[in-house]
Amino acid sequence: MDIYKKSLEHHKKWQGKISTHVKSTVQNKEDLSLAYTPGVAAPCKEIVKNPDNLYDYTIKGNTIAIVSDGSAVLGLGNIGPQAALPVMEGKAVLFKEFADLNAFPICLDTQDSDEIIQTVINISPVFGGINLEDISAPRCFYIEKRLKEVLDIPVFHDDQHGTAVVVLAAIINALKLVDKPVKECKVVINGAGAAGIAIAKLLVGYGFEKVVLCDINGALYEGTNNLNEEQILMAKITNPLNEKGDLRKIIVNSDIFIGVSAPDIVDEKMISSMNRDAIVFAMANPVPEISPQKALKAGAKIVGTGRSDFPNQVNNVLAFPGIMKAAVEVRKQITDEVKMKAAQALAAFLPEDQLTVNKILPYPFEKGIAQYIANEVKAFFSLEI
Amino acid sequence: MDIYKKSLEHHKKWQGKISTHVKSTVQNKEDLSLAYTPGVAAPCKEIVKNPDNLYDYTIKGNTIAIVSDGSAVLGLGNIGPQAALPVMEGKAVLFKEFADLNAFPICLDTQDSDEIIQTVINISPVFGGINLEDISAPRCFYIEKRLKEVLDIPVFHDDQHGTAVVVLAAIINALKLVDKPVKECKVVINGAGAAGIAIAKLLVGYGFEKVVLCDINGALYEGTNNLNEEQILMAKITNPLNEKGDLRKIIVNSDIFIGVSAPDIVDEKMISSMNRDAIVFAMANPVPEISPQKALKAGAKIVGTGRSDFPNQVNNVLAFPGIMKAAVEVRKQITDEVKMKAAQALAAFLPEDQLTVNKILPYPFEKGIAQYIANEVKAFFSLEI
Repeated sequence: MDIYKKSLEHHKKWQGKISTHVKSTVQNKEDLSLAYTPGVAAPCKEIVKNPDNLYDYTIKGNTIAIVSDGSAVLGLGNIGPQAALPVMEGKAVLFKEFADLNAFPICLDTQDSDEIIQTVINISPVFGGINLEDISAPRCFYIEKRLKEVLDIPVFHDDQHGTAVVVLAAIINALKLVDKPVKECKVVINGAGAAGIAIAKLLVGYGFEKVVLCDINGALYEGTNNLNEEQILMAKITNPLNEKGDLRKIIVNSDIFIGVSAPDIVDEKMISSMNRDAIVFAMANPVPEISPQKALKAGAKIVGTGRSDFPNQVNNVLAFPGIMKAAVEVRKQITDEVKMKAAQALAAFLPEDQLTVNKILPYPFEKGIAQYIANEVKAFFSLEI
Repeated sequence: MDIYKKSLEHHKKWQGKISTHVKSTVQNKEDLSLAYTPGVAAPCKEIVKNPDNLYDYTIKGNTIAIVSDGSAVLGLGNIGPQAALPVMEGKAVLFKEFADLNAFPICLDTQDSDEIIQTVINISPVFGGINLEDISAPRCFYIEKRLKEVLDIPVFHDDQHGTAVVVLAAIINALKLVDKPVKECKVVINGAGAAGIAIAKLLVGYGFEKVVLCDINGALYEGTNNLNEEQILMAKITNPLNEKGDLRKIIVNSDIFIGVSAPDIVDEKMISSMNRDAIVFAMANPVPEISPQKALKAGAKIVGTGRSDFPNQVNNVLAFPGIMKAAVEVRKQITDEVKMKAAQALAAFLPEDQLTVNKILPYPFEKGIAQYIANEVKAFFSLEI
């Protein structure tokens, strides 16, 4: 039976992948008088005195919302909030399983950015953090930025930052194997949506000086027409030589290729035109920009994809549970510095002497990764003023 | 140690009374590919085909939201959405414990009625029902009415309807003991807020012809000044003799007194002025309109309160878990007829030969009440066209 049929049966059997669980059961009058009226008036009054007490007496300190409008779901596109629910439940499962963080799916029946922002603000009292998910670019940039300004709880768009953190971690380890300095590597990113932009931003922040971001029209350079606000910013901070042209031209003599775009758009010639010891992350899902076999045959040294059935899976689950857990606990926003720290920690999880071209990242199910990332990120947060 | 200190410790220990629970664990690559990508695309696609499939593949069919703006919390008043959270979590606990219905607290950081409505509409895809809670009158009437018009999932304001159902059940059984016909009983309700209005409406619908609703200014009659829309409607359908005057005057020669108002506002003289075999439900919390001891001494035959430490506790938990469970399962709105059916079922749960003046209602923790109410209500729903 194929995975899709199996998954359908799995979902039908469980009728939803999460449920609520009562931490302390209510089985008699006394239980009831503690958890509910009249006793419950006591924590209510403490919170009236000081809203910070929410973190002591309620679920706020260990619960996040997974917010989506279903406008850019996995490989499925704009399928809307209803059809997005199985994905958001799945994400809730991952937060719980990997970081023991309670997460509840909130699928929004609107794709108006300002209404999404207002709705999230309105429901925010219950949550210690907001994980934005599968919201289309460029709307996702505006929504995230505004929510970060207004809310006093961490807001994280995993499609952007989770991806960027894991890609940076993979690059850090890959560069150890090919022994090239960050400043000299030319990095070509194909796909100027949420993930591509976030990756480019993080790499530039980390110290890469030769990043070129491409989309379907070729390289983004200062002066490109029809860019959105974020892309204009990217054209400014990337592509220092103001290179113009399509991916086939831009990829020549590059050291790292990162695809967050579409299946089969890179051929062997393009890989062969890269510098020696090329690093290729072809992360289009489920069909990568080029298959690992082809990329290796064409001369790539290290190849990663988004798939679990090839080596070097670049999987967000390595990053988001731990990062969010830490941010919720310290009640701070996740800055670029925090993301870099998380990427370094994730890279360092794998001892240098265990790195091989077929294993530059830990597997998602290696024990303790999320807690380790959370601890490292928390330690870093505590250094910040 | 008093109940408030104990409750505070209880809340601090548990840091929130509910958590999310993963129904089917994700512990390896294959689990992940079923619950999340790539397998999850299958239920997503089924829901795109037909949104009804949400009920087969997601949490929607067994999950409700408990929505409050914290504007009228228990005896605490307008304490806001943050401080209301312990109460909403408590309610979530009750839904789960009594009816095995997953409920998630949504405390809204707005008290603008239209914004509350829009926010609830926006988050509705995930939920199979909406339980409105502790929203002040008259806003609660407008919000509930509008949401019922717009949403295709049941919407229930428990402070109104849960209370009304349990009061009607209590009256049905009390009248069996004092042997008075419904049509001839004069019922005086003190308190013209959410609960008082809902009780009056349900009693009139049930066949009581002599209901008079009072507030702090005395009886509501047609032509009273400064009434809100719901109160104007109530003045029309109650008080057939157009009686005017304060509670002390109106209560004379009545058969049933229902207090949903304020502590200690009824004295023994007022009770003595009622008809023989008077029935008194003094439900102000925590201090009733008159203590059971005083009411009985003054001649009342049957006395109930909202408290668990006196006989005849009129407790919403007898009604809302079962009603909501049934409505979510059949996906229908809860009409007045449904509420009457629920009240009759609740009354009938106690065999007639076991009724005494000290036990006209089951105790909340008697086994199987919620499931029994749910079954009765579902059977009734299935009779409707």
